[in-house]
Amino acid sequence: MAVEIERKFLVRGDQWRSLSVGMVYRQGYITTTPEKTVRVRIAGNQGYLTIKGASVGYQRAEFEYLIPIEDAEQMLASLCVGPLIEKKRYKIPIGDLIWEVDEFFGDNQGLILAEVELNSPDQAFELPEWIGEEVSHDYRYYNANLTKFPYTQWPIK
Amino acid sequence: MAVEIERKFLVRGDQWRSLSVGMVYRQGYITTTPEKTVRVRIAGNQGYLTIKGASVGYQRAEFEYLIPIEDAEQMLASLCVGPLIEKKRYKIPIGDLIWEVDEFFGDNQGLILAEVELNSPDQAFELPEWIGEEVSHDYRYYNANLTKFPYTQWPIK
Repeated sequence: MAVEIERKFLVRGDQWRSLSVGMVYRQGYITTTPEKTVRVRIAGNQGYLTIKGASVGYQRAEFEYLIPIEDAEQMLASLCVGPLIEKKRYKIPIGDLIWEVDEFFGDNQGLILAEVELNSPDQAFELPEWIGEEVSHDYRYYNANLTKFPYTQWPIK
Repeated sequence: MAVEIERKFLVRGDQWRSLSVGMVYRQGYITTTPEKTVRVRIAGNQGYLTIKGASVGYQRAEFEYLIPIEDAEQMLASLCVGPLIEKKRYKIPIGDLIWEVDEFFGDNQGLILAEVELNSPDQAFELPEWIGEEVSHDYRYYNANLTKFPYTQWPIK
């Protein structure tokens, strides 16, 4: 098991686009509750199965396994609830950290989020100038919730 | 993905005991609905993560992955609902098939089930004389349901 310590932000402007080439991600959820999620993801040519526990502050237990892409395709098609998440992920190294910018498509078109994974919850880090408001604790921005309540349908953004 | 084609029976008497040495299984469920289950299992020193789809007749889609036993222990302790299933599994080869006899403990003490996996739903096979009533379509005997409604609490058996 890993413990994921993550902070999440909105993104401003387009400056980040020149810093990385994105990779297409498709993902869905076999189950999603506040206590746990089971996620199926295809990133490039690789499938992943990921189990996450409840968020406690910025921390969350995470178990991730590589799986054959054919299995991931079949699970996305037959076992995942709601519309799939489609996004492009850009990995952008800044200082010692890797920022991940997710540009969403489909039902979440228009949403761009940036995440950074930390080694401890109180770790200091530099905020690039294209980083906007922090949304770490806003459940609407959880990918699992974006399948149920996609961004294009939010009454207030 | 594999497609699991399985038939399940009650067990009569003790004749089967001399045919195999059992292995201890502990398992729990991250989610269980009629449409899908996510199971964590420890069998001997190996962990398994298994996703199953809905049963259609005797058939069910199944995706199974080996995982580190430490991950399985952590998921059983923190992410699995209900009491765990504890059982001893005896594998008994008869003809071309392997029968699996599950002797349950804990909240399901007293229950003994036999399963056989087939290559096609209409495959003919020999029934050993210690095999009793078929329960393939009785949902109470699904292991996922035995965590919610354990055998010792059934009003009628």
